[in-house]
Amino acid sequence: MAVSVPEATNEQDLQQHRQKVEFLRNVLSLDDTAYDKVIRKIESFQVAVPSWALGTGGTRFGRFPAGGEPRTLEEKIEDVGLIHQATRATNSISLHIPWDIPKDATSILELLRENELIIDSVNSNTFQDQADQKYSYKFGSLCHTDDRIRKQAVDHNIEVVEHGIRLNSKVLTVWLADGSNFPGQHHFRKAYARTLDSLQQIYKAMPGDWNMLIEYKPYEPGFYSTVIPDWGTSYQMSQACGDRANVLVDLGHHLPNTNIEQIVARLLHFGRLGGFHFNGSHYGDDDLTTGSIKPYQLFLIFNELVAGANDRQVRNPAVAYMIDASHNIKDPIEDLINSLENIRSAYAKALLVNVETLEHAQHENDVVLCEQILQAAFQTDVRPLLAEARLRTGGSLDPIGYFRSQKIREKLIARRGKKSVATGL
Amino acid sequence: MAVSVPEATNEQDLQQHRQKVEFLRNVLSLDDTAYDKVIRKIESFQVAVPSWALGTGGTRFGRFPAGGEPRTLEEKIEDVGLIHQATRATNSISLHIPWDIPKDATSILELLRENELIIDSVNSNTFQDQADQKYSYKFGSLCHTDDRIRKQAVDHNIEVVEHGIRLNSKVLTVWLADGSNFPGQHHFRKAYARTLDSLQQIYKAMPGDWNMLIEYKPYEPGFYSTVIPDWGTSYQMSQACGDRANVLVDLGHHLPNTNIEQIVARLLHFGRLGGFHFNGSHYGDDDLTTGSIKPYQLFLIFNELVAGANDRQVRNPAVAYMIDASHNIKDPIEDLINSLENIRSAYAKALLVNVETLEHAQHENDVVLCEQILQAAFQTDVRPLLAEARLRTGGSLDPIGYFRSQKIREKLIARRGKKSVATGL
Amino acid sequence: MAVSVPEATNEQDLQQHRQKVEFLRNVLSLDDTAYDKVIRKIESFQVAVPSWALGTGGTRFGRFPAGGEPRTLEEKIEDVGLIHQATRATNSISLHIPWDIPKDATSILELLRENELIIDSVNSNTFQDQADQKYSYKFGSLCHTDDRIRKQAVDHNIEVVEHGIRLNSKVLTVWLADGSNFPGQHHFRKAYARTLDSLQQIYKAMPGDWNMLIEYKPYEPGFYSTVIPDWGTSYQMSQACGDRANVLVDLGHHLPNTNIEQIVARLLHFGRLGGFHFNGSHYGDDDLTTGSIKPYQLFLIFNELVAGANDRQVRNPAVAYMIDASHNIKDPIEDLINSLENIRSAYAKALLVNVETLEHAQHENDVVLCEQILQAAFQTDVRPLLAEARLRTGGSLDPIGYFRSQKIREKLIARRGKKSVATGL
Amino acid sequence: MAVSVPEATNEQDLQQHRQKVEFLRNVLSLDDTAYDKVIRKIESFQVAVPSWALGTGGTRFGRFPAGGEPRTLEEKIEDVGLIHQATRATNSISLHIPWDIPKDATSILELLRENELIIDSVNSNTFQDQADQKYSYKFGSLCHTDDRIRKQAVDHNIEVVEHGIRLNSKVLTVWLADGSNFPGQHHFRKAYARTLDSLQQIYKAMPGDWNMLIEYKPYEPGFYSTVIPDWGTSYQMSQACGDRANVLVDLGHHLPNTNIEQIVARLLHFGRLGGFHFNGSHYGDDDLTTGSIKPYQLFLIFNELVAGANDRQVRNPAVAYMIDASHNIKDPIEDLINSLENIRSAYAKALLVNVETLEHAQHENDVVLCEQILQAAFQTDVRPLLAEARLRTGGSLDPIGYFRSQKIREKLIARRGKKSVATGL
Repeated sequence: MAVSVPEATNEQDLQQHRQKVEFLRNVLSLDDTAYDKVIRKIESFQVAVPSWALGTGGTRFGRFPAGGEPRTLEEKIEDVGLIHQATRATNSISLHIPWDIPKDATSILELLRENELIIDSVNSNTFQDQADQKYSYKFGSLCHTDDRIRKQAVDHNIEVVEHGIRLNSKVLTVWLADGSNFPGQHHFRKAYARTLDSLQQIYKAMPGDWNMLIEYKPYEPGFYSTVIPDWGTSYQMSQACGDRANVLVDLGHHLPNTNIEQIVARLLHFGRLGGFHFNGSHYGDDDLTTGSIKPYQLFLIFNELVAGANDRQVRNPAVAYMIDASHNIKDPIEDLINSLENIRSAYAKALLVNVETLEHAQHENDVVLCEQILQAAFQTDVRPLLAEARLRTGGSLDPIGYFRSQKIREKLIARRGKKSVATGL
Repeated sequence: MAVSVPEATNEQDLQQHRQKVEFLRNVLSLDDTAYDKVIRKIESFQVAVPSWALGTGGTRFGRFPAGGEPRTLEEKIEDVGLIHQATRATNSISLHIPWDIPKDATSILELLRENELIIDSVNSNTFQDQADQKYSYKFGSLCHTDDRIRKQAVDHNIEVVEHGIRLNSKVLTVWLADGSNFPGQHHFRKAYARTLDSLQQIYKAMPGDWNMLIEYKPYEPGFYSTVIPDWGTSYQMSQACGDRANVLVDLGHHLPNTNIEQIVARLLHFGRLGGFHFNGSHYGDDDLTTGSIKPYQLFLIFNELVAGANDRQVRNPAVAYMIDASHNIKDPIEDLINSLENIRSAYAKALLVNVETLEHAQHENDVVLCEQILQAAFQTDVRPLLAEARLRTGGSLDPIGYFRSQKIREKLIARRGKKSVATGL
Repeated sequence: MAVSVPEATNEQDLQQHRQKVEFLRNVLSLDDTAYDKVIRKIESFQVAVPSWALGTGGTRFGRFPAGGEPRTLEEKIEDVGLIHQATRATNSISLHIPWDIPKDATSILELLRENELIIDSVNSNTFQDQADQKYSYKFGSLCHTDDRIRKQAVDHNIEVVEHGIRLNSKVLTVWLADGSNFPGQHHFRKAYARTLDSLQQIYKAMPGDWNMLIEYKPYEPGFYSTVIPDWGTSYQMSQACGDRANVLVDLGHHLPNTNIEQIVARLLHFGRLGGFHFNGSHYGDDDLTTGSIKPYQLFLIFNELVAGANDRQVRNPAVAYMIDASHNIKDPIEDLINSLENIRSAYAKALLVNVETLEHAQHENDVVLCEQILQAAFQTDVRPLLAEARLRTGGSLDPIGYFRSQKIREKLIARRGKKSVATGL
Repeated sequence: MAVSVPEATNEQDLQQHRQKVEFLRNVLSLDDTAYDKVIRKIESFQVAVPSWALGTGGTRFGRFPAGGEPRTLEEKIEDVGLIHQATRATNSISLHIPWDIPKDATSILELLRENELIIDSVNSNTFQDQADQKYSYKFGSLCHTDDRIRKQAVDHNIEVVEHGIRLNSKVLTVWLADGSNFPGQHHFRKAYARTLDSLQQIYKAMPGDWNMLIEYKPYEPGFYSTVIPDWGTSYQMSQACGDRANVLVDLGHHLPNTNIEQIVARLLHFGRLGGFHFNGSHYGDDDLTTGSIKPYQLFLIFNELVAGANDRQVRNPAVAYMIDASHNIKDPIEDLINSLENIRSAYAKALLVNVETLEHAQHENDVVLCEQILQAAFQTDVRPLLAEARLRTGGSLDPIGYFRSQKIREKLIARRGKKSVATGL
């Protein structure tokens, strides 16, 4: 597979694209330098795709497979490669252990290189029982009351790090299903203390150049409480672990009506925003296409990220951007392309915000002007800029169109079968 | 298995029970007639247990089986029989088709009779694809844009009714997963019209003494919209079907902060409350033990039910009471016993409300007195009344204690194995 | 005051506007006919401004007046005239009785005519006690247990209609604060019946060419229940009143996560969507600028409205569009201009949806394509179209800029004073 | 006024009370020592009543006064004295400045002594503009962009402390309305930094034996963001201020579905739970009677408080318990009596939890048993214990009955008038 799409596939749309992007430059009054700067920023904004999201997802009520799903880590890399080829927006993969333990790290690294991909973070799994597992996580893992089970879970995380080292990853993401379903089940304070102790053990076992991301989630699968329900808890735990432990924000992991962009700003202010799990949400952890439900909220989040990145007073480590979604009814590859484009759209719009004017209006409490500045950026149709960034880097002007016209799903089905099942599903 | 628990198992607690119940009679100033009336009402309040909830439940993240789970319809009936023996509170089973298609209706009816059980409602399943199914329900069933798929779903429902007829059921419950995940996916008005048309076909195919219950749910598995999201839609559809179509209220199927007791009152007022799915909920359709999270809300719901039942102006059909929960971490049998007791507790408290005084206080807008009347009933410890009702009907004074002391789970595991899996899970 | 803005005020921006709108025409491939059709549709989309929203709003915690607020109905008309002059998007006023009882209907009608305005709906107020009122609405109005108080509330509504008749209105909007704060306070079924009886009395008293809009709201000021909490209740009540009673949807009157666009589609399907109260909401009935929080949701609502308007199978009466917001920190006039522009933006984007292609994709369950069609319309920057519509009808290319550069607030303060208070606040 | 209710008023109910409480002792198997210990704990549990909550409250839509409302601080003390006389459950008052600035501290202290009351915390008000105020808080107070306004707000808080010193208070409660209504209005990071700087100034100005309580609230009056929206932010700010700054939890200040009891446990674990504002909530900051909507949640919160108080590993300062509610439709005095009794009920039930058995069941993950232990305590009817505690300390067996039979409201109206208005309303 070539890392760039064939030029011919863009030919038809090229002229119209040139017109659109030229016009937008004029509207935005961007000189050559400013224009190139924006395009290059968009080009370099890359989001990792998770290895567990290349097959059809499901709910507890059922799963409706699409066909042609990747059966192995190698095939998952191939799919991410296809997405990256068309979008040039995802140069990395988040890996899920034990679903995607590489048998031969060297050949995996070679395959990644061929696809211009790297391994982003590695993710542990203590929310399910594996066939060969000694103790069950039914009542928790890192928080468990039984020391042996906690040790098993800690050891699993350390093993995940070891797999990651072999693949040149530097980041461990910890999401815990640990929680309770009924009042009284958990001793809240002890569960917190045990979990923190476990995390500290894992943290200490990581190499000195590794980072730990601690995810929070208010409910599901725990339906009464979770051990790490909110950013406040994640933040406390990351502080108690050390400088290289930070908070991971998953957009679907909040109670109704939460102002997520403010949480992002808070964590940037504290220098503890470690990473993102992007997805779309209407009700809970719906794991829909990013930007499909609340595109303005996504823009406001990126507005904080861009402002934070440009503010010298913010001392935050590099943020790990990942998608974490479930493709229940869309083709997984198309769904991921949708997400990647929506994320870049929000990012590009945030780049257009006139920060200086905004801060002045904020200082003067000119509320109408503050909002107009954000709205002006949000209402701008940035699709030509995204297309230009793809074009310059060898991607497709129309990634979904490319995927469909090249009959990629049909070819994958032909090779992998109609009823293939991705590992971990 | 005997239908009553051995008297000896109650002996130890008997004296203390007598004291407690006697005291409570005094506190409540109940003469013999009033006392007997209350106990008899409690005795006769029966709630169906669903055949699909006797095994360990799970979430999309995993399932942690308990062992000794029933493998067949016969074993499910055995489990419900055990629960009924100890609680005398569940004389019926809701059946799920195709998970529990009886091979031999006659022998099933005989087994039911032995356990003093009947079949309550039968439930169709168009939210999953079965192995031998021609068309997929990935994009809906009764709402589907493709006539052939709609026909398949309608036919399935009619088949479910036929199974039900053989088992002396009279009620079809329809819960639809039909919905959408993304804006634009559904043509809302057409999806409504197609669904209604399908329901009307099913309604017409039912025998004249059958009832249809139409369930609503705002989200999950559809994470953008569902075709029947709220009571208003269920009610419209039931009206458009006919007199024997009514609304089913599942306690977990509401948006945050919904006043469910008012919906119950509304449907009683309209004479369209057909049935209940009981469960407990903190966040969404959590399917926890009924009464485990918001016991006061459960009481307020029963307050409406009891008031409605005693009000001649209310012309509502008999309400079908069922549990619909998922036993993810508790032993399924213990969990169901918990639910049954919590439901009867709410019912018994509602029986203690002084309706006449309450209505007078309501008329006078004496808000403090209105609330005191409800609170007086709710704060009363009715556990002795529930125990007395169980005792009089051959149940256990302490059903959970009975289950544990008789080592019932251990015996079930010995017979069925540690890794048995209930059909449908 | 002139009804058009001076041409000179648009001169500076004119050339750039011409370029932008011309380019957009090309992008959208609109020929002259199609282009004119879109612009004319936008021009003719008018939204009423409420007479109660021209002063600074507040919360129960406080109010921070802006100065120059209109003190009389005449001054309120003047303010709406100013907004209409700049935006050409609001040709009518919703009137609040008793806050804005006209002393001399003839002169008010003349003043309206001068400002090219009409009276849209009239709104009753039974949620507050007026100084001269015989009975208190503390415990309800149309739902009250006391017949005398119900009669007073019914009579007030009839009086409101009479005022409306004199001002050529044809619509009565009924929003009820009737509800309860504590369990037990209301007899739900009786409160429903009494309220319906009251509404029926009012309905019968209306002239044959009048319409009644019945608003729903789940909470506030009632914090346990309201008599008309949801669309289902409004719809039932409107059906029970008659053909000219319909449901009013206020965007802020929903529980968290409600899919409002589906409710809109439902009511259109039933032919009972009577009107809209536009505002923005993050948490509850926040009464913010329309479109300021969830612009995509606003677009999706308009997508239903436009689709419904173009569908012959939909037999819905003309919908009354009104703003109902509270201007707590923005200048009220600027805030209303913001809302009007955001509403028209959502409308214009909805006009760009390719309905035919969408319906085909819906029928084929091509979910990705369905969403792309909506997203393509939403992401289009329609500001040039809105500007063109304003320009053609005598409005300003930049209404907020016009308001500020003309120092309108300063002039209003000079005339009305810094501490003027609008009637009703 | 006597500090005890006349013995005669309890005579009628005395015999029945003795029976009930004796029976309950038997059921609970409490020997004399254990029984006295429980009763004494209940007796000593005191909750402050706020000076601002003795008049009728209201919403932004209106207020319906009850009559006889206290017009001065002296009359407010009188009302709290009456409540304390009947309930013996509120020995202190939270004071609101500037609404209740004492003219003569000495005479106020004397009046408090006569009523066996003390001043609990003092509360600043920077959410409203006072008539004589130089700068407006329209756009914030402690977070304001203008240094002069921030200084004014800091100075006000220091002045509040000075008033408190004169009244022997030791606690300053800071609730901020600071927030924003629209995206872009606030620079989140700068607003946080400015607010913290202001709080640190106030903290430094407090005497060394004073404590500061920092309240959080997610929305209202800010409808897009607030500066201190959640416990995480309060906690960070309290840490950054110093050891005597702690978090105040108001039960109504949470997003939908929040597990508040876990937050309480978290703050106890961190040793930073400073105080409580008790009230009841169905939707948002509804400020209803405490325990009127979710009594089980209230019990679960007290379960954490009692467990924390008995755990030597918890090093938390003394918690300040206050009611903060709005009496919109109930008589304010009756409403406060309701709240005080419901709070004590939750507390008494929490005292009955068998902590040792619970912790053992938690350690064994016996989820059913854990829940049964809590449920056994919750279902116990503790009203006789509360009555006994009141009786022993000179209160009334039936406080609401006492208030009504003594015609206290009628007497207050006779003295204060039908249309009196409490300061601050």
